[in-house]
Amino acid sequence: MKKHVLAACLLGAAGPALAQQAVADYPIQAVSFTKVKLADNFWLPRLKTNTDVTIPASFQRCEATNRVKNFEMAAAKSGKFATTFPFDDTDIYKTIEGASYSLSLYPDEHLKEYVDLLIAKVAAAQEPDGYLYTARTIDPAHPHPWAGMARWEKERELSHELYNSGHLYEAAVAHYQATGQKNFLNIALKNADLVCATFGPGKRAVAPGHEIVEMGLVKLYRVTGQPKYLQTAKFFLDQRGHYNGYDPKSPDEWRNGQYWQDDKPVVAQMEAEGHAVRAEYLYSAMADVAALTGDKPLLTAVDSIWQNMVSKKLYVTGGTGAVPSGERFGNNYELPNATAYNETCASVADVYWQQRMFQLHGDSKYADVMEKVLYNGLISGVGLDGKSFFYSNAMLVKNSASFPQTEPARAGWFDCSCCPTNLARLFPSLPGYVYGQHANDVYVNLFVSSTADLLVNNKKVSLTQQNNYPWEGGLKFIVNPATATDFSLLLRVPGWAQSQALPSDLYTFADPAAAPGVTLKVNGQPVAVKLRNGYAMLARKWKKGDVVEMTLPMDVRRVVANPRVKDDIGKVALQRGPIVYCAEWADNNGKVTNVIVPSTARFTVAYHPELLNGVTTLTTTVPTVQVDEATNSIQTVPQTLTAIPYYAWANRGKGEMTVWFPARVLDVDLVTRPALQAEQKK
Amino acid sequence: MKKHVLAACLLGAAGPALAQQAVADYPIQAVSFTKVKLADNFWLPRLKTNTDVTIPASFQRCEATNRVKNFEMAAAKSGKFATTFPFDDTDIYKTIEGASYSLSLYPDEHLKEYVDLLIAKVAAAQEPDGYLYTARTIDPAHPHPWAGMARWEKERELSHELYNSGHLYEAAVAHYQATGQKNFLNIALKNADLVCATFGPGKRAVAPGHEIVEMGLVKLYRVTGQPKYLQTAKFFLDQRGHYNGYDPKSPDEWRNGQYWQDDKPVVAQMEAEGHAVRAEYLYSAMADVAALTGDKPLLTAVDSIWQNMVSKKLYVTGGTGAVPSGERFGNNYELPNATAYNETCASVADVYWQQRMFQLHGDSKYADVMEKVLYNGLISGVGLDGKSFFYSNAMLVKNSASFPQTEPARAGWFDCSCCPTNLARLFPSLPGYVYGQHANDVYVNLFVSSTADLLVNNKKVSLTQQNNYPWEGGLKFIVNPATATDFSLLLRVPGWAQSQALPSDLYTFADPAAAPGVTLKVNGQPVAVKLRNGYAMLARKWKKGDVVEMTLPMDVRRVVANPRVKDDIGKVALQRGPIVYCAEWADNNGKVTNVIVPSTARFTVAYHPELLNGVTTLTTTVPTVQVDEATNSIQTVPQTLTAIPYYAWANRGKGEMTVWFPARVLDVDLVTRPALQAEQKK
Repeated sequence: MKKHVLAACLLGAAGPALAQQAVADYPIQAVSFTKVKLADNFWLPRLKTNTDVTIPASFQRCEATNRVKNFEMAAAKSGKFATTFPFDDTDIYKTIEGASYSLSLYPDEHLKEYVDLLIAKVAAAQEPDGYLYTARTIDPAHPHPWAGMARWEKERELSHELYNSGHLYEAAVAHYQATGQKNFLNIALKNADLVCATFGPGKRAVAPGHEIVEMGLVKLYRVTGQPKYLQTAKFFLDQRGHYNGYDPKSPDEWRNGQYWQDDKPVVAQMEAEGHAVRAEYLYSAMADVAALTGDKPLLTAVDSIWQNMVSKKLYVTGGTGAVPSGERFGNNYELPNATAYNETCASVADVYWQQRMFQLHGDSKYADVMEKVLYNGLISGVGLDGKSFFYSNAMLVKNSASFPQTEPARAGWFDCSCCPTNLARLFPSLPGYVYGQHANDVYVNLFVSSTADLLVNNKKVSLTQQNNYPWEGGLKFIVNPATATDFSLLLRVPGWAQSQALPSDLYTFADPAAAPGVTLKVNGQPVAVKLRNGYAMLARKWKKGDVVEMTLPMDVRRVVANPRVKDDIGKVALQRGPIVYCAEWADNNGKVTNVIVPSTARFTVAYHPELLNGVTTLTTTVPTVQVDEATNSIQTVPQTLTAIPYYAWANRGKGEMTVWFPARVLDVDLVTRPALQAEQKK
Repeated sequence: MKKHVLAACLLGAAGPALAQQAVADYPIQAVSFTKVKLADNFWLPRLKTNTDVTIPASFQRCEATNRVKNFEMAAAKSGKFATTFPFDDTDIYKTIEGASYSLSLYPDEHLKEYVDLLIAKVAAAQEPDGYLYTARTIDPAHPHPWAGMARWEKERELSHELYNSGHLYEAAVAHYQATGQKNFLNIALKNADLVCATFGPGKRAVAPGHEIVEMGLVKLYRVTGQPKYLQTAKFFLDQRGHYNGYDPKSPDEWRNGQYWQDDKPVVAQMEAEGHAVRAEYLYSAMADVAALTGDKPLLTAVDSIWQNMVSKKLYVTGGTGAVPSGERFGNNYELPNATAYNETCASVADVYWQQRMFQLHGDSKYADVMEKVLYNGLISGVGLDGKSFFYSNAMLVKNSASFPQTEPARAGWFDCSCCPTNLARLFPSLPGYVYGQHANDVYVNLFVSSTADLLVNNKKVSLTQQNNYPWEGGLKFIVNPATATDFSLLLRVPGWAQSQALPSDLYTFADPAAAPGVTLKVNGQPVAVKLRNGYAMLARKWKKGDVVEMTLPMDVRRVVANPRVKDDIGKVALQRGPIVYCAEWADNNGKVTNVIVPSTARFTVAYHPELLNGVTTLTTTVPTVQVDEATNSIQTVPQTLTAIPYYAWANRGKGEMTVWFPARVLDVDLVTRPALQAEQKK
């Protein structure tokens, strides 16, 4: 673990600060989404689709599925909770959060009015003391079965009362930062005051069953400076591992508490465990509280968990939570392809967490992981149309009866619809993940064409990125200080550009020496790449119009997994830049699980603007196994393999897909049962 | 269900009858093993090996593993139970049972003396009131953990006290029938008197956790005529399904009672369920008690269970108990190959049960199933050397990391060594399964060269079989009555000889019309085959030297499974006569899971006296899938397939084996992990 200094600095530059005093915090502050204007060919259309399609569709679905009606009934104190889960309230909060970020990108008076209308409905549903949970308020004598007869009594396992609060706070802070309005924030603060009055030393205690209230309270602390919010967040963290109702010897993680990250005190947790979304929200909050309190054991724990996840529990696409039952992390190296779960929400949570780890340590490895998640396993969760989603993200789909297919096609909405609304809030906040700053150090984490308005050395500095990332490796940075000034520009040199597939030995490149290096120029003059914690550091007096050019090697790389990942032995994945590839049926004669990619395969790289909203494909000629049913003959036949970015799969119907390809085949299993789909049709 | 008449007839012709009066019993009585002298090329060497190798090895192992010592310590009332399971006592009983049958085949003064010595040790270990259970008697203050502090208190789930008693009775009756001695029988009766005094209406009640005491009590009833033994057997049957300690909603069959066939009253049980050995001992006892009491609901239940098992839960080899966890029957049609359990003891129990069903109903279908079990899934449990065993009997062994191999090689003995000793007692009793008699009807169930001494119409009749079964279909029967006499000879016409793979639609022949019919001659003159309940009936006045010849079609038949058996879809098994074939590595270039057997394949049939103690093999040329690892190429290559009888597999080391062959291949799964064995060596 790197040396870590908790610097005392002003609260985040984001939004109108209510805080009155300087406190300990992350050494590095993210440059707020309000300060960054995107101009990116890759992300801007996605954010536009999110604004134009996803957010309206989410609001529409919140109306159509009675989620809004629940708030109206709670305000009226009559009716019957009209949706499935008591946490359905959060879909509205999350969509408001997304809309808030979106409004700062694309001002929209109609949307603003609609959001204010919804906020008014939320306010009306809030009980006088701040309690806000429609599943009980509608009819307190007959609350939702998960809620229990008394407030908070089922919070550990079922009620999600504090989960709803957490999403409320997250959304309210985003709304406040984006609009400067306090109408939503005041609802959140009123609820948080109740939570803080209810929970704490000498009061009620619980380890919240689905974490996020901790992150949310920290955000309220940031905007208000009121210590009780931070204290209560830490109190919730400290409750973990102290419940006596579990059976520590049970292998069932619901019975032993692991599902909720509740089997051990939080400072004793050293591995990523249990329900992945809950876990990564917890780890985000652990980083927050460690930063804000300087709590060393908490920092040690979260660093250890990060190392464990990145070394043993991360799919090559950045997906986390391998096991469908419990939507949870598997054991170390338990990363099966056929049954991979990889909830989209876990990728959202992972972005939050990686950002915080970066802010703690200033090491590029955290942004490396964040980039992997963002460009692969996260955006795979939403279709190119912006309104079809994957709850879980497959690694392999095989059209065979022997294959346990769980997730055949994208769906519009789910009963438990956490993922669509989580994407809706993540996308428009992306500008907030591009840059970071610590005093005179300016970090560039993501290569996203954009202009950021910074304040460095008390001087205004405009930093512009121009590139065609992730398809091309030429990156241009234009620095425009108001007047010439000294500071350090720290450009992340991705691990993959240095032949490191991941900051661990979980995945490595098969041909580490093959790729050329990273080059750097300032105002056209080559300069040596000097790395600090994975960033190319350029410390100089910057003047108006200075241009930095960095070139990343965009070779096609063959990824191999640590041999302890049993499913990937003898297989390769394909990566170019940050993009992990897959092959799907649509480009490959209907079948991809018959493809062998030997080490001799060489790839043709081509950008296709018309394909899947514009993607760079990889093509090569490889042996494929062809079965002739009529003659019972089997042979390998050369065929063109076309690989597309993993994130873009399943936008053209249903069929086979694989991320990992056999590089060498030792044997075959003969399949005699008809394909599952054909069977189901009967 | 056929009409069933419980005839009042004398107790079985076997052994010196202690019974005083005629009672209801099976309409058909088996001709006792003491009346049948084998001269069979197939079975006699096996019985000889059992006598020369298996039984001495079993006794030797009972000594070496402290099983005998347990009895010595119980007699001395000092020491510490020296084996693993409290039911280890039964290995001695079962081996004595085998030795007793064996002594009637091969008189052996040394063996007889050794058995008497052991019986004396058993007698010394018996407590004064008849209790016999070394795990408690050795040190009643510290009994085996399974036994509990009080007698019988853990009988349902753990102690096996009544299981030990059941095997004691079985063995004692065999010993008495074979030798005429009462030294062992008296121990059994003393114990049974205690059991009858302890359990019954108004006394203690339990459904015995591992059934067999019911069968054993019936045998004691048969030799003594004392109604209490039969009544107590029925009492135990009636206890099933009345325990309140189970959770009927639990899917766990230990918690819902299904494991012990204890979830429903015995008359409400309609499907084969739970632990297969326990189940088939129970079903045997149900048949016994139904026959002896005329209990109609019991008969209905056992008939229904039989139909269920034969229609939905029987492997093509006759194996039963598909599921390793719980050694139990699976759901209907749950007959996977890769994980097939098929405990050898379940096959032993199945022979007992099928015999009883035949005696109840006189239908050939029961002997059809018995034959399938005897010639395939039962004798596969012991190696040709007579001293290496399979506890479970695989259907498929694949040398691949993707394959869950559980039973790689035969073993000499097991911690839980029920199977070897169960085989040791079954083999020498085989002469008792060949013939049956009901008044003037003489049934021939098994085609085993032998001579039986019968009493028909109060006249001595000698019936001799001469054949080279199962390798040849020509069967010769020579009838020698003392003087000419009228009776019916009923020769079983096997279902397979009439193109019926099984008396259900679980397995069928792929080419039902292809085979020629069965022919019959009497004294050289063709006669029409008139079937009664599956038997060719020849009713005539038989005179000395009459010769009957029956010819069974010995074509190679392709068996296909009901398509509800998912694992066998698109596959075929091979059968010739009663013998089900497999292919194993040793005859097929080291690999058999790459073999395709298309419907066009034609087989060469040849007997090889030198191979595996003499077997008929099937050979043909078929496509095999060959993988060239170096070039990553795969192709189908014609190769000779040699199939051997399933029972003879795994006598030449370890390697691949399969019973089912893909007839058509729809797809392949590419295997990239090294073979499991190679992996384990690392």
